[in-house]
Amino acid sequence: MITAPPSLLTLTNPFEERLEQVEALLAAQVEAGRSPLETALAQLITAGGKRLRPRLALLTGSLLRADPGPLLCLAAAVEMLHTATLIHDDLVDGAGLRRGVETLNVRWPAAASVLVGDHAFTRAARLALATGSLPAIDLFTETMARMVDGEITHLTRAPGIIDQEAYYTWIGAKTAVLFELAAAAPALLGPAEPAQAAAARRFGFQIGMAFQVVDDVLDFSPGPSNLGKPAGQDLRQGTLTLPALLYYQTDPDDPDLLAIASREQLDKEILERLLARIRGSGALEAAIETAQRYISEGLEALDRLPEGPERPLLEVLARSIVDRAK
Amino acid sequence: MITAPPSLLTLTNPFEERLEQVEALLAAQVEAGRSPLETALAQLITAGGKRLRPRLALLTGSLLRADPGPLLCLAAAVEMLHTATLIHDDLVDGAGLRRGVETLNVRWPAAASVLVGDHAFTRAARLALATGSLPAIDLFTETMARMVDGEITHLTRAPGIIDQEAYYTWIGAKTAVLFELAAAAPALLGPAEPAQAAAARRFGFQIGMAFQVVDDVLDFSPGPSNLGKPAGQDLRQGTLTLPALLYYQTDPDDPDLLAIASREQLDKEILERLLARIRGSGALEAAIETAQRYISEGLEALDRLPEGPERPLLEVLARSIVDRAK
Repeated sequence: MITAPPSLLTLTNPFEERLEQVEALLAAQVEAGRSPLETALAQLITAGGKRLRPRLALLTGSLLRADPGPLLCLAAAVEMLHTATLIHDDLVDGAGLRRGVETLNVRWPAAASVLVGDHAFTRAARLALATGSLPAIDLFTETMARMVDGEITHLTRAPGIIDQEAYYTWIGAKTAVLFELAAAAPALLGPAEPAQAAAARRFGFQIGMAFQVVDDVLDFSPGPSNLGKPAGQDLRQGTLTLPALLYYQTDPDDPDLLAIASREQLDKEILERLLARIRGSGALEAAIETAQRYISEGLEALDRLPEGPERPLLEVLARSIVDRAK
Repeated sequence: MITAPPSLLTLTNPFEERLEQVEALLAAQVEAGRSPLETALAQLITAGGKRLRPRLALLTGSLLRADPGPLLCLAAAVEMLHTATLIHDDLVDGAGLRRGVETLNVRWPAAASVLVGDHAFTRAARLALATGSLPAIDLFTETMARMVDGEITHLTRAPGIIDQEAYYTWIGAKTAVLFELAAAAPALLGPAEPAQAAAARRFGFQIGMAFQVVDDVLDFSPGPSNLGKPAGQDLRQGTLTLPALLYYQTDPDDPDLLAIASREQLDKEILERLLARIRGSGALEAAIETAQRYISEGLEALDRLPEGPERPLLEVLARSIVDRAK
């Protein structure tokens, strides 16, 4: 598990207390012990992760003077929605590890993942509802819909090499909209003006795009920085992410890449060879530059938000997204 | 597919137009053609069924003078939620036929059922949100949570014979709460008094219980009345429903029943033998009597609702639930 850089932990100290309240809200939604499955969900929830999304919500909301009670519920709702989508996506992808531990779908039949994911969705909906704000609930619902629709589009794509536009659309729906929600919904819980709300929204979306690009780069590096997963998970599933697509631009005839993209029977040797070739091609560095550009664009949007002690913290949060790949 | 008895169709004529508006709302949520999966969902939605739940919502809402626009959204939301739970439950149960056609999980990988179910959930949430009523959205969310939690409890039950109380708890969460929602939420969309809302709620829940008991009885009869499914689906999965539990009361030592309940390797011969024995035991008739009692209790609650042309229609709807088993 990645821990936030010390600078972030130190700087966000005034907000750590609120983050603990979010943790308590999350834990209250899933009582361990009622059934083995709920216990599994409770473990997944408390296992945590960096809590980037609730941090983003709390900081943006505080900056925009969102109503504190509803803001806590919103921050928890965003994290719970994140967990729910992880559970179903792991099932869809057949992923084996999540936050360094086995995913539900390794330990339980598919039925269990379906229902525990649904359970998490209902808890997320309950938390969103607790904000009491129809516009926030609306944005929450639309975000959920965009995420699911994006996965469906991705799942039903034709075999072969997707173009970069399709990649950006996909990661937008899969990841960036949730960061967007975390930054934009708080604007609906207070006196923020439409221009501020739009800037918050753009800030969230852009850093969310950067987050996914970095995640996709990390999938090429084995070891602890890659959340404990073996390298090349995406390629293994025939999914070409930005590094592979950038490599494809420079070497469009690599038969290994074409074989993997066509989702033919996977050969471990081909995979290892291709991984090494992509790593050596400069594609990872180019992808990180792309992530850096998203962060820069996000920071430009951040500049349009009001002054306040939260702004430098949001900047640290944004920069930490790319820093974890360094 | 079961069609409503002619009496119901004739009597509900003034409401057929509103039901068509509900159909239009449902169809608008799922645009066929965007992807094969969405087309599959659209087919499932438009394949319909009896639309008992939206009918219940429209009639109760009209009787309680619910705001017509929000009421339409609510009726569509309830049906969409029903469809979403069907999709995931079919995956969880490994069911092969639904509304006379193959279920999604037969035609698509599990991943597809997960995502199309999620897609339907998001559409249901969107429709619920369109009511604009926080109390109605709250009841909707709680119903969703109760349904999912009920399925988890059922899925993680210990092998062996459940007691009747566990059965009633299970079908309450699985089926009756959705009928309850359909009847109770309209009371939140208008000037209904708390006592009326409570009566509507009870009416919905009781007829929902009857509906599931009848459904479970129909599972013992092959042929068209059983929605085109082969007989004994529940027993096949080691699920004992009311007829089997009533049979168990009179013949607790039947080794075939014990074998099936322990979910050992299933023998087709054992299943057929047990089906025949339960059919001949009077258990089906006794279960129908139970359903009839639920209907009677529901009708007592209906009597506490205001007078109006919708009341006899609601009575016809309630009675039709048991009539389909005759």
